[in-house]
Amino acid sequence: MIKVGIVGGTGYTGVELIRLLSRHPQAQITMLTSRSEAGRRVDDMFPSLRGVTDLTFSDLDEKKLAACDVVFFATPHGVAMKHARFLTENDTKVIDLAADFRLQSLQDFEAWYKLEHACPDILKDAVYGLPEVNRDAIAKAKVIGNPGCYPTTAILGLKPLIDAQNSQQQALIEPWIIIDAKSGVSGAGRQAKMNLLFSETSDSFSAYGVAGHRHAPEITQGIDQILGQNKHFQPHDIRFVPHLVPMIRGMFTTIHVRLTAAGQALDLQSLYETSYQNEYFVDVMPKGMYPDTRSVRGSNYLRIAVQTLENSPMATILVVQDNLVKGAAGQAVQNMNVMFGFAEQTGLALVAVVP
Amino acid sequence: MIKVGIVGGTGYTGVELIRLLSRHPQAQITMLTSRSEAGRRVDDMFPSLRGVTDLTFSDLDEKKLAACDVVFFATPHGVAMKHARFLTENDTKVIDLAADFRLQSLQDFEAWYKLEHACPDILKDAVYGLPEVNRDAIAKAKVIGNPGCYPTTAILGLKPLIDAQNSQQQALIEPWIIIDAKSGVSGAGRQAKMNLLFSETSDSFSAYGVAGHRHAPEITQGIDQILGQNKHFQPHDIRFVPHLVPMIRGMFTTIHVRLTAAGQALDLQSLYETSYQNEYFVDVMPKGMYPDTRSVRGSNYLRIAVQTLENSPMATILVVQDNLVKGAAGQAVQNMNVMFGFAEQTGLALVAVVP
Amino acid sequence: MIKVGIVGGTGYTGVELIRLLSRHPQAQITMLTSRSEAGRRVDDMFPSLRGVTDLTFSDLDEKKLAACDVVFFATPHGVAMKHARFLTENDTKVIDLAADFRLQSLQDFEAWYKLEHACPDILKDAVYGLPEVNRDAIAKAKVIGNPGCYPTTAILGLKPLIDAQNSQQQALIEPWIIIDAKSGVSGAGRQAKMNLLFSETSDSFSAYGVAGHRHAPEITQGIDQILGQNKHFQPHDIRFVPHLVPMIRGMFTTIHVRLTAAGQALDLQSLYETSYQNEYFVDVMPKGMYPDTRSVRGSNYLRIAVQTLENSPMATILVVQDNLVKGAAGQAVQNMNVMFGFAEQTGLALVAVVP
Amino acid sequence: MIKVGIVGGTGYTGVELIRLLSRHPQAQITMLTSRSEAGRRVDDMFPSLRGVTDLTFSDLDEKKLAACDVVFFATPHGVAMKHARFLTENDTKVIDLAADFRLQSLQDFEAWYKLEHACPDILKDAVYGLPEVNRDAIAKAKVIGNPGCYPTTAILGLKPLIDAQNSQQQALIEPWIIIDAKSGVSGAGRQAKMNLLFSETSDSFSAYGVAGHRHAPEITQGIDQILGQNKHFQPHDIRFVPHLVPMIRGMFTTIHVRLTAAGQALDLQSLYETSYQNEYFVDVMPKGMYPDTRSVRGSNYLRIAVQTLENSPMATILVVQDNLVKGAAGQAVQNMNVMFGFAEQTGLALVAVVP
Repeated sequence: MIKVGIVGGTGYTGVELIRLLSRHPQAQITMLTSRSEAGRRVDDMFPSLRGVTDLTFSDLDEKKLAACDVVFFATPHGVAMKHARFLTENDTKVIDLAADFRLQSLQDFEAWYKLEHACPDILKDAVYGLPEVNRDAIAKAKVIGNPGCYPTTAILGLKPLIDAQNSQQQALIEPWIIIDAKSGVSGAGRQAKMNLLFSETSDSFSAYGVAGHRHAPEITQGIDQILGQNKHFQPHDIRFVPHLVPMIRGMFTTIHVRLTAAGQALDLQSLYETSYQNEYFVDVMPKGMYPDTRSVRGSNYLRIAVQTLENSPMATILVVQDNLVKGAAGQAVQNMNVMFGFAEQTGLALVAVVP
Repeated sequence: MIKVGIVGGTGYTGVELIRLLSRHPQAQITMLTSRSEAGRRVDDMFPSLRGVTDLTFSDLDEKKLAACDVVFFATPHGVAMKHARFLTENDTKVIDLAADFRLQSLQDFEAWYKLEHACPDILKDAVYGLPEVNRDAIAKAKVIGNPGCYPTTAILGLKPLIDAQNSQQQALIEPWIIIDAKSGVSGAGRQAKMNLLFSETSDSFSAYGVAGHRHAPEITQGIDQILGQNKHFQPHDIRFVPHLVPMIRGMFTTIHVRLTAAGQALDLQSLYETSYQNEYFVDVMPKGMYPDTRSVRGSNYLRIAVQTLENSPMATILVVQDNLVKGAAGQAVQNMNVMFGFAEQTGLALVAVVP
Repeated sequence: MIKVGIVGGTGYTGVELIRLLSRHPQAQITMLTSRSEAGRRVDDMFPSLRGVTDLTFSDLDEKKLAACDVVFFATPHGVAMKHARFLTENDTKVIDLAADFRLQSLQDFEAWYKLEHACPDILKDAVYGLPEVNRDAIAKAKVIGNPGCYPTTAILGLKPLIDAQNSQQQALIEPWIIIDAKSGVSGAGRQAKMNLLFSETSDSFSAYGVAGHRHAPEITQGIDQILGQNKHFQPHDIRFVPHLVPMIRGMFTTIHVRLTAAGQALDLQSLYETSYQNEYFVDVMPKGMYPDTRSVRGSNYLRIAVQTLENSPMATILVVQDNLVKGAAGQAVQNMNVMFGFAEQTGLALVAVVP
Repeated sequence: MIKVGIVGGTGYTGVELIRLLSRHPQAQITMLTSRSEAGRRVDDMFPSLRGVTDLTFSDLDEKKLAACDVVFFATPHGVAMKHARFLTENDTKVIDLAADFRLQSLQDFEAWYKLEHACPDILKDAVYGLPEVNRDAIAKAKVIGNPGCYPTTAILGLKPLIDAQNSQQQALIEPWIIIDAKSGVSGAGRQAKMNLLFSETSDSFSAYGVAGHRHAPEITQGIDQILGQNKHFQPHDIRFVPHLVPMIRGMFTTIHVRLTAAGQALDLQSLYETSYQNEYFVDVMPKGMYPDTRSVRGSNYLRIAVQTLENSPMATILVVQDNLVKGAAGQAVQNMNVMFGFAEQTGLALVAVVP
């Protein structure tokens, strides 16, 4: 049984971590901090946790936190990086659900997040926590940058194609990718903002971040990592447009690419099925089935469907996940499982809540 | 590990049973039947179950069904009663999620459900499966009538008051009760009906069954069972009005009563807390907290709050549950746990999905 | 063409007033004020008004406001009362959509709204703006307290019964009334509050104000006004419990009463139909039809259904309206029409948006 | 005052036509037919029309229908074409809201709709009813094929770019277009289908028609019509992927293109603003504003935003409309206005219902 700390348990990723970890057979939450709610029982704030946990929020005390085996940061950007040095020096692993350790490029981080990085040296050794891409590195990591929700879908949706390019040593798609993504409202976090009110977002659909979104450089970095030294494919035009869906949870990412002649010769369905056949949480749907977000609601699965057309080089890749589980807290727990050598699905064998 | 059969796995209570039982540590679904879908994999119909189960629907074969230790009927009214004799004669227990074994009065059953009962003798020995009321009888029962969703909230919402009347031997409320109930749309089942379309029910609120609803006699029966021989209180005017809420799951029941002088002398908050202090699934909220349905979404909890007023004899009891869990499949599994001597929360330690 | 001013056009009742008045054939919005948004075009804030209006928010200037024939206050409680004297002294009529002029009792106002009233003398002459009750007084009024949304449904839902008591000079219902009301989220206004977020209120149902709500004394006052000198009926136990529905607009009020023997002798259906036969905006539905809130979405109609039972003295009255139209801005425009002698439906002949 | 007939008033486009036409100052519905509901008052079926209309459904009688000046068909595909000859021979104009007269190519029609066309000669003279493209032809037309909802957004979203290509005589975008479209559920019509139930579609997001959708050839045809003789631009790879949004009304279409060097030299914002400056119903939003579907809810507006990027040739065009108004019934009435010489906005000056 490992000891787990959660910094910032009052947001949606925080309460989701508590939901998952309170039933994890090999982990125990021993510390839960919140500046604003110190002293308050967590189930007073989230009655859904009544009967589930007796935890009380406390102030953040680095020393006490360092008694944990691992600490999750479910905080705004810029918090984890302030505590990562102390914690790792005390052999406490860090999993940051914000962006402090996602972008390897300091320049990108500072440009997109308008923050100076507190520990560039630690960032250099931090691992991007996408187990299906970086499992081995995660197992050895001290600090994990838990991926953004959109990048998780985009990178896993494209990985088989890019791996195939690498192995075939030729471009399979034209050098642009369109990522038209749709997210439930919980992705915006638990913030008292006018534009997130029920009366503003219900029964409506909108786009946002159309002129540029922080997850774009993260997607590019993720694809570059898979590309590695292979420069036959240079997706220099990744266009990422996120939209807001009137639903609480769920993310649906539609990826549009145009296949080269070599790409059209591929059997994409078979490529994807083979690529993910050993991944517990990635489900490639059979030909002709398409995912909906509810099929992963509350669970850590990510489902993919691919669609090619007879008379066109256009190909479409559809990816769904629960943005708070595989897109955030579930993936964080999956990373923890990898880091501590637990079976990857431990505590994550959740069945989607349907209907 | 007991062997479980599910008859009718294509409706919402059926798929919810599969969700719960597929993760139950002491039960295994060995048979799943559907007339219309025989031969089809259940995860082809419900992709949320991909990776969770390999079950395939089969035709209903009584003999094969009788090899199970217990069979759940997640069917329309009138199916379970046709198979109850054969199954119980073969030592297979029956839990019916429809109404065949809910109403002890044949006359009431036939009047409200427009069906002739197939086995009145078995009905006589069947037990109304509300563990918080009938736990001991359930433990010994062969056939369980799993309660309707509304009656579960109404009966458990009133039980402490009626128990108190019994023990005080005097009326604590005036002889009428108003049960103003609100349900999510999934309560109407998975039926292709015009009035259940998204475009008809979303962003709207309505009442139904205003002139009379089948759950009214069931509520009356449940209250009569608790009253027992005590006739000081005769709630001859139970007014039950159900409403439809634009949400998938969740039930919120507002119970209005008027306290007698003796009733006003009671500390209702304390009465309710004491009454349910040993019930795992019933949560009496602290004074001043009121429940919302999402706090039980996907879980088997039922939450209650009571409110009295300083200058008025009116009292209000608020009850929430997930209509598909504590209001149907979860309660059915709870009954199974009681019947087979498992700890009552086995397989049901689900945390509500919030947000 | 009269000149209209709107103070506080940034909330939901404000934007709804603009929607209605921008198409009113006999009124023109000449002034629109907002402290926080002065200088901004209203269609920059509400793109739904692009192409509809060129209005720009300005600072509140009493003198300029007094050039209007009528000024609507779509502001928080406490604003209208500060300007009512100056405006009325300059022959500008005032319609307050907040509570400054709703409660005739100063004591009640100050107890429930925690504000000292700025002009008790004007309050004394103000008229409660429910045209179906006070039409003649409204026609002559200088200051209107536009009713709260809940009271509109409760008072109009009960009026025929109370009128009948008055004319029969006997009690028709027992001396308690239960008003179990349900409102869409827009009723809470356009405020950046955590509990009004989409992710908090969607797919959930809750109660609020269970221990007491400001609309309770307003309902009591409204019933008292209709009762007048008739003391045969004393509804000293009006229990009002509001709930929050996951929908944007719409209010559904379920009124429960218990008929006396005299009440049971009445034909309630016929009583209600007769009572409202000349009211343009009140629709009594035929026997056996029940209203849903969408049937009035975006329109100024209020629909009522009544239901009695054969074997019980309980009676149920169901009332729906759009909380922002008949429950707020539409009723305010209806009051304006009455005050200026326009046909009552002028500018209000809106058909509900269904689906 | 012209006489209007509506065939098939029981679906969503039918009831929307009634909503709009019942308040149209120059048109009167004199006939409303429905096979299944003949003899029933329309407000018995749609209580939202109580107090609005006294219309009763009647059987379809061609002779009586021919007494109308214009007949709208709000029917399934294949009905209008059976009556078009008789009606037009009797000088009654026809506006079909289904697909009988949308596709000029018989082959395409029969391939996509699996129907033999009943009157190819009439089809040849029918006009595609998109006023912003074909206004003059509509004014003279006898038969209008009212556009599909998706094609309306796609064609109007692309028109300025294609017009610019025509006038510049060079390609401005690469020869593929991605149309990633999202629709509210009412677009699927009022049909009792399992997959349209509230419990199936609420709080979820999905794609459909991924392997091919009937609106794809209609979009291609629309673009070809604007292209005319200009073959510099050949959009031979139009990829159209529709998605289903958990909202009742509203359509959001995201169009992705890649600009050529010539295209990048354009000021798209200015191009679009100029292009639509005289169109009452098309609103090009200012730079940096993006549309949401609620801003057109219930109204006939279509809003467009364009977005280019500094470091990329990718351009994004966002288009919203209410699928039942500009995407169906509103556009049909707009066509009627053009055909009969009324001001185009007559009866359509509706303000969106926000919130």
